[in-house]
Amino acid sequence: MTLPHTNPPNRLLLGGGPTNIDSRVLRALLAPLVTHHDPFFYEVMNETQDLLRYVFQTKNALTLPLSGTGNAGMEAALRNIAEPGEEVIIGVNGFFGERMVEVATRVGIKPIRVEAKWGSILKLEDFEAAFKTSQAKAVALIHGETSTGIQQPIREIAALAKSWGAYTIVDTVTSLGGCMLNVDAWGIDICFSVSQKCLGSLPGLSPITVSERAYNAILNRKTKVSSYYFDLIELERYWSEERMYHHTAPILMIYALQEALRIVQEEGLEIRWKRHRKNSQGLIAGLEALELELFAQKENVLPSLTTIKVPGTISEIKVRQWLLDNFNIEIGSGQGPLNGKIFRIGLMGVNSSEEKVMLILEALTRALKKQGYNIRMGAGMEAAAEYYDSVS
Amino acid sequence: MTLPHTNPPNRLLLGGGPTNIDSRVLRALLAPLVTHHDPFFYEVMNETQDLLRYVFQTKNALTLPLSGTGNAGMEAALRNIAEPGEEVIIGVNGFFGERMVEVATRVGIKPIRVEAKWGSILKLEDFEAAFKTSQAKAVALIHGETSTGIQQPIREIAALAKSWGAYTIVDTVTSLGGCMLNVDAWGIDICFSVSQKCLGSLPGLSPITVSERAYNAILNRKTKVSSYYFDLIELERYWSEERMYHHTAPILMIYALQEALRIVQEEGLEIRWKRHRKNSQGLIAGLEALELELFAQKENVLPSLTTIKVPGTISEIKVRQWLLDNFNIEIGSGQGPLNGKIFRIGLMGVNSSEEKVMLILEALTRALKKQGYNIRMGAGMEAAAEYYDSVS
Repeated sequence: MTLPHTNPPNRLLLGGGPTNIDSRVLRALLAPLVTHHDPFFYEVMNETQDLLRYVFQTKNALTLPLSGTGNAGMEAALRNIAEPGEEVIIGVNGFFGERMVEVATRVGIKPIRVEAKWGSILKLEDFEAAFKTSQAKAVALIHGETSTGIQQPIREIAALAKSWGAYTIVDTVTSLGGCMLNVDAWGIDICFSVSQKCLGSLPGLSPITVSERAYNAILNRKTKVSSYYFDLIELERYWSEERMYHHTAPILMIYALQEALRIVQEEGLEIRWKRHRKNSQGLIAGLEALELELFAQKENVLPSLTTIKVPGTISEIKVRQWLLDNFNIEIGSGQGPLNGKIFRIGLMGVNSSEEKVMLILEALTRALKKQGYNIRMGAGMEAAAEYYDSVS
Repeated sequence: MTLPHTNPPNRLLLGGGPTNIDSRVLRALLAPLVTHHDPFFYEVMNETQDLLRYVFQTKNALTLPLSGTGNAGMEAALRNIAEPGEEVIIGVNGFFGERMVEVATRVGIKPIRVEAKWGSILKLEDFEAAFKTSQAKAVALIHGETSTGIQQPIREIAALAKSWGAYTIVDTVTSLGGCMLNVDAWGIDICFSVSQKCLGSLPGLSPITVSERAYNAILNRKTKVSSYYFDLIELERYWSEERMYHHTAPILMIYALQEALRIVQEEGLEIRWKRHRKNSQGLIAGLEALELELFAQKENVLPSLTTIKVPGTISEIKVRQWLLDNFNIEIGSGQGPLNGKIFRIGLMGVNSSEEKVMLILEALTRALKKQGYNIRMGAGMEAAAEYYDSVS
């Protein structure tokens, strides 16, 4: 009998994520399924946690992949650290900062907004002012704003929070495994991310790590965490040697994450950060030669995701559709108020390579020319090549 | 370069779930990854929803797989239907009924317990009494109690709830796709399940369906749902034609679920229910010939999961360990107060077959004999064969 097959297009995923997956990671999905309390799976859990500690650069005991997506990590971080009615300062300079305000409000937290223009970083002095006029239990901000391509400095803000006796929550959804990050050295209390971006696994898991200080704060809450599924202390009882049943882990996804993390470790985290930065710089050199303007402040660009203003006369959607139809390449559109105004090009995990930079520069040039943009084919690639030669 | 491989043991999974996976489902995981807003993925979503409506036997528009495990489905159902402080009647006759009380309490619901002995069904009159003495917004109960192997009649209780203007939530984690269920005909308002049991996909998703009546109740809440991640109305905006971004769907897991659901459809739901019932009966015939006693009331046994009292002199853990070490077969242990007192044998999805029944009967006989249980090899298999011959 012949059966109809799900036959997805073979896309090159150069948007905001997910990114393409190494075949080693896919192969790990095919390993025999065991249950969530099999001794073999406990070994997988232990190694996965050690590897997560490595990519987060932390010694935190409570380090595990949540059974949900990045939004689950955001909710778990906020729901665990703050009790209903407590204040949390939230940095808002993009779509996901706004999302964090929404998620916090839903869980009963009073959000104190610290804002900056979309495409700029948040400023330390604005957090200082917010601490002075609030009773904030924590500060929450986004390391790599996926909507704007901004990389936010964290260290000083975390130190400030600590000086006020507050905790620091950092969303590293678009940065973990691709951009410099050091949870312990930077004084981050709760850091969460996703499996499907710079770590290069499939979407569905949200790695999270919690400092001892934050762990104790959660233990000493006056009220129970208002979700059993996201209760980090209960989850830790399953992920630690106690092996207390909590829920059925998404076992095959954890096999895949383990393999993806092994790949990160084999490459070496610092080399991987350098690779992402180099290819981001190569892409930017090419984009500038194409007379395209970056959306994010150049001194704070996120190595994993580059944002570009759509030239005045060009239809953003037509360019993206042309790339999809003709090159099977997906790049990202603008989110929220940036819809139609910017392109977002992600170079994450396996896709952060010179080869992909050259391909997207030429494909984009061709797509723009089809829409009447007046630029010479090859100009972007030449500038990128010059950059690569200069740093090799 | 040679790399260390994750090499799990090749277990036959005959416990409380997950179950083994059809190779077609695994193959679906290897299809090219697209993003959560790719037109191709929208087609996958639409078909997956239609297939879920088929397995739930419903016309409900709001029918989708949540990005979380069964516990996420339980939380979402309770969190959406009731507002903080409202009462929900919860049927408790096993571990997962107790879990439901815990989950409800965490989300701010006041649980009204209706209890029955573990291993027995809940009685309609006890729900009547609970409605008379409460202001319950809903009743929540478990169709297939994974801890006891009991199948709970639903229809009359749902009708009762409706007569009180209340909603009915049903957990079909261990029954959906293997045991008779008809969401619309039985008057269920919110029904949730998991991907990894009788549906035969991998763990990580929680299919859920919501009646129009319950959907309107959620729409008309006085307060917003106290979780953005689990807000069913917001999720529906992504899963319906609006395609509003909510979170990055676990795309490959949804490919796998789609394929698993196609397999269910090809077999036919009623044939699949009959298969699960037949193999459960075959197993029971064999167990009785082995002079083993069922734990669950015989007239209400769950076709997907059979529970057996551990004979007096036998070490439960040694039997399970022997099966694991010698046959690579995992069966389930008792949960909570039943720990050490019962075995749980799951026959779900591909594992509900005459061949698996014969294998587990003989393996179990051998394991019990190793622990000094005095029974003849072959006695169980003979009785099962007789049962199969009588119904074929």
